[in-house]
Amino acid sequence: MKNMLLASTSTLHDQAYLDYLLLELKEFYSVGSQVLFIPYARPGGISHDDYTEKARAAFAKINLDLKGLHQFPNQVEAIQQAQGIFTGGGNTFLLVRTLYSLGLMQPLKEAVSQGTPYLGTSAGTNIAGLTMKTTNDMPIVYPPSFNTLGLIPFNINPHYLDPDPSSTHQGETRETRIREFHQFNNIPVVGLREGSWLAVKGKEITLMGSLSARIFLPDTAPYEIEPGASLKELK
Amino acid sequence: MKNMLLASTSTLHDQAYLDYLLLELKEFYSVGSQVLFIPYARPGGISHDDYTEKARAAFAKINLDLKGLHQFPNQVEAIQQAQGIFTGGGNTFLLVRTLYSLGLMQPLKEAVSQGTPYLGTSAGTNIAGLTMKTTNDMPIVYPPSFNTLGLIPFNINPHYLDPDPSSTHQGETRETRIREFHQFNNIPVVGLREGSWLAVKGKEITLMGSLSARIFLPDTAPYEIEPGASLKELK
Repeated sequence: MKNMLLASTSTLHDQAYLDYLLLELKEFYSVGSQVLFIPYARPGGISHDDYTEKARAAFAKINLDLKGLHQFPNQVEAIQQAQGIFTGGGNTFLLVRTLYSLGLMQPLKEAVSQGTPYLGTSAGTNIAGLTMKTTNDMPIVYPPSFNTLGLIPFNINPHYLDPDPSSTHQGETRETRIREFHQFNNIPVVGLREGSWLAVKGKEITLMGSLSARIFLPDTAPYEIEPGASLKELK
Repeated sequence: MKNMLLASTSTLHDQAYLDYLLLELKEFYSVGSQVLFIPYARPGGISHDDYTEKARAAFAKINLDLKGLHQFPNQVEAIQQAQGIFTGGGNTFLLVRTLYSLGLMQPLKEAVSQGTPYLGTSAGTNIAGLTMKTTNDMPIVYPPSFNTLGLIPFNINPHYLDPDPSSTHQGETRETRIREFHQFNNIPVVGLREGSWLAVKGKEITLMGSLSARIFLPDTAPYEIEPGASLKELK
């Protein structure tokens, strides 16, 4: 049975890395398990080692062990044998290119489909959707495809930001960008605000955290759903 | 001799479309010429016809005629014979995919290299650079390549935004995104603020408008250049 926690962001303002999720994560991963960390999104260009150390330090607070996927000689096997997986945020283009080039997309999809607990934050959440076409990231590298894991039947836009009515900036708002996406794609998009996450248990998908989320469908006015709402009919 | 005007944005806050550039454009295009408009970036999903009409109305204010590239039966010929070209803003992924699928990237590069006046705004400016890897747009479609026209020896980040010190949002700042770009690319990036443009005349490239621009190089602290500064050594 699928067991995923898909978070908009790893970090809330004025908090330490993953702090707001730690209580959840203690429940989420089995007691004493070692979590496999996928560091390939490299936020700000941080090295795989440094990023893994950052995640390790946070997981140590709840007595979980964590090891970076790049440290394993056989990475497919590492994914197949993982007791839990966490894909950190950063650049989605880089993450997707790396997963494809190492042949890890399919093994990752299979492991999570078969029930390995999966935590994603930001880019790690993006790739759980059908495509990465609703990422906010800059296309700094060219991946062989924009198709991602498809572990949920829609896309997520993490770090969702409401339009700022006082802004004089002419760059597109997030809502405009998602409307452009729907000119060419027939996939629902969940705008997930920072502090929100989706809990996926088998076929059930629930909005968690204290904020509402914004749902975008083609040819339909966007609407809000409240914490606790089910998204299992969204497809 | 190359003759380009590469603008960060088409529109300034509280102004009409292209208004702040109209005086420049009157000088830029030859008297009475017909300008070829490339509408493929489709901001907000606007149709090619509606987008062309919007540009036509603005150009009419300075007595220039304008026709949409999509209206020509032979688009390669239309580019080769154009008296002037304008590529409007919108989604860079869509613009680049469309130019590649219609076989127009090379003819466009040749025409502008040979001196056809070229105006770009936003996405239309992005494609003048070496790659589209510093666009701000959402990857709503998958282009066959991120390589673009290479009419200037660097990349542009249009709608450049300085970090907001009061923001509590955890999404990456523009500067962080460009730093991530430089982990994998050795190309200078010009952060072009709204209201700024680059004037390209042969080998000379000059920053125009009233604002400074921000220059990003690999392994170097970003720095500002002032209006009137030459960028011809930037490569």
